[in-house]
Amino acid sequence: MSDPARHVVLHYAMPSRACGVRMLLEELRADYALSVMDLKAGEQLRPAFLALNPLGKVPTLQHGEVIVTEQPAIYLYLAELYGECGLSPRVGDPLRGAYLRWMVFYGSAFEPALIDKVQGRDPGRRTASPYGDHERVIEAVRAQLARGPWMLGERYTAVDVLWGSALGWTRRFGMLPALPEIDDYVTRFESRPAVQHARTLDAALMAA
Amino acid sequence: MSDPARHVVLHYAMPSRACGVRMLLEELRADYALSVMDLKAGEQLRPAFLALNPLGKVPTLQHGEVIVTEQPAIYLYLAELYGECGLSPRVGDPLRGAYLRWMVFYGSAFEPALIDKVQGRDPGRRTASPYGDHERVIEAVRAQLARGPWMLGERYTAVDVLWGSALGWTRRFGMLPALPEIDDYVTRFESRPAVQHARTLDAALMAA
Ligand SMILES: N[C@@H](CCC(=O)N[C@@H](CS)C(=O)NCC(=O)O)C(=O)O
Ligand SMILES: N[C@@H](CCC(=O)N[C@@H](CS)C(=O)NCC(=O)O)C(=O)O
Repeated sequence: MSDPARHVVLHYAMPSRACGVRMLLEELRADYALSVMDLKAGEQLRPAFLALNPLGKVPTLQHGEVIVTEQPAIYLYLAELYGECGLSPRVGDPLRGAYLRWMVFYGSAFEPALIDKVQGRDPGRRTASPYGDHERVIEAVRAQLARGPWMLGERYTAVDVLWGSALGWTRRFGMLPALPEIDDYVTRFESRPAVQHARTLDAALMAA
Repeated sequence: MSDPARHVVLHYAMPSRACGVRMLLEELRADYALSVMDLKAGEQLRPAFLALNPLGKVPTLQHGEVIVTEQPAIYLYLAELYGECGLSPRVGDPLRGAYLRWMVFYGSAFEPALIDKVQGRDPGRRTASPYGDHERVIEAVRAQLARGPWMLGERYTAVDVLWGSALGWTRRFGMLPALPEIDDYVTRFESRPAVQHARTLDAALMAA
């Protein structure tokens, strides 16, 4: 459905952290276009793109004059732009705090812990580290998912698209240990029609 | 002013990343109580606190049954809880995207880049790193502040309390180079009455 006022452009690459954002756009049945880049060729470091995102990173979202970067910010923004889809608990909703917490936790604690582990780096003094220690971060995620079926309980929200897609690739790349709560969650996520549709579109893009 | 429905408890330590949240509470004239912990004594690792925040970190916010952790999530939550104060651009506001972007950027890009630099760690392969390289991160912050007077331009928002407090301590600890845009911004921030009041309260707490 064309909706000019809400049309967005997603700067994209495959495979990349942008793939989850496409899944969210499909969940929202959003009006979007992709601008696909070749990261290996260094297209993200061209001046025209650096003017949008000075870090040279995808995902980067454009909505008219508005530029949004950083996965959790993009998920928050899109889910509220399409507020009628119900993927963004509103201000005053009892789930609002947990929604914001787990969105931010992804980028502020989970990714730093993951990258340190994958690169074999010492997290340093725990009080100074933004996350403390890797084991506690993974255990926090596991315990949260154990309540299920979704991250905030019964209600499926945009935070699940972020975590479902991210836990999917981190598990496939062997970056996380096998834990039934995480694997079952990823399976539930992957069975969603919008997620499968995004994968089909991605496969077609890869083939092209 | 007592406002039972909006009363919050901030788990606190001094000095710590929680100090900026107190500044925000003062800006909002919020109804709050502190629960002060001694991090050096390891009080953050007691089971009762780990039940609230399994990472054992401050700031941690309690609002009734709702627990919020991670600085940007806490700032987002409080600013919208006190929406009438105008520190949280609403959905549909042209500043909303930049507001979310710079909130999340703090924890997803700036802190990881800062910690790597301070600990003398190689950021690793740039495409895999959540932020790419340290210089681009600092330059992105500098360029954004150069537009001034506040991070989003004319309007002072909760994102300034996060960045104003964080750039303050990172500069004082010599974790950032001296850049006029950053230092002028910190000076502007420090001159706000709510910030000064929070500092006075902190000094009294330290003395007690
Ligand atoms: N903190 C960013 C990280 C994004 C990111 O690192 N994306 C990678 C692809 S998965 C990228 O664009 N790499 C290109 C580069 O760094 O040159 C976010 O969460 O959105
Ligand atoms: N990612 C967290 C980091 C919070 C944090 O690391 N706080 C430090 C104090 S500045 C802490 O609580 N350290 C105690 C510990 O790790 O044991 C945030 O941004 O809120």
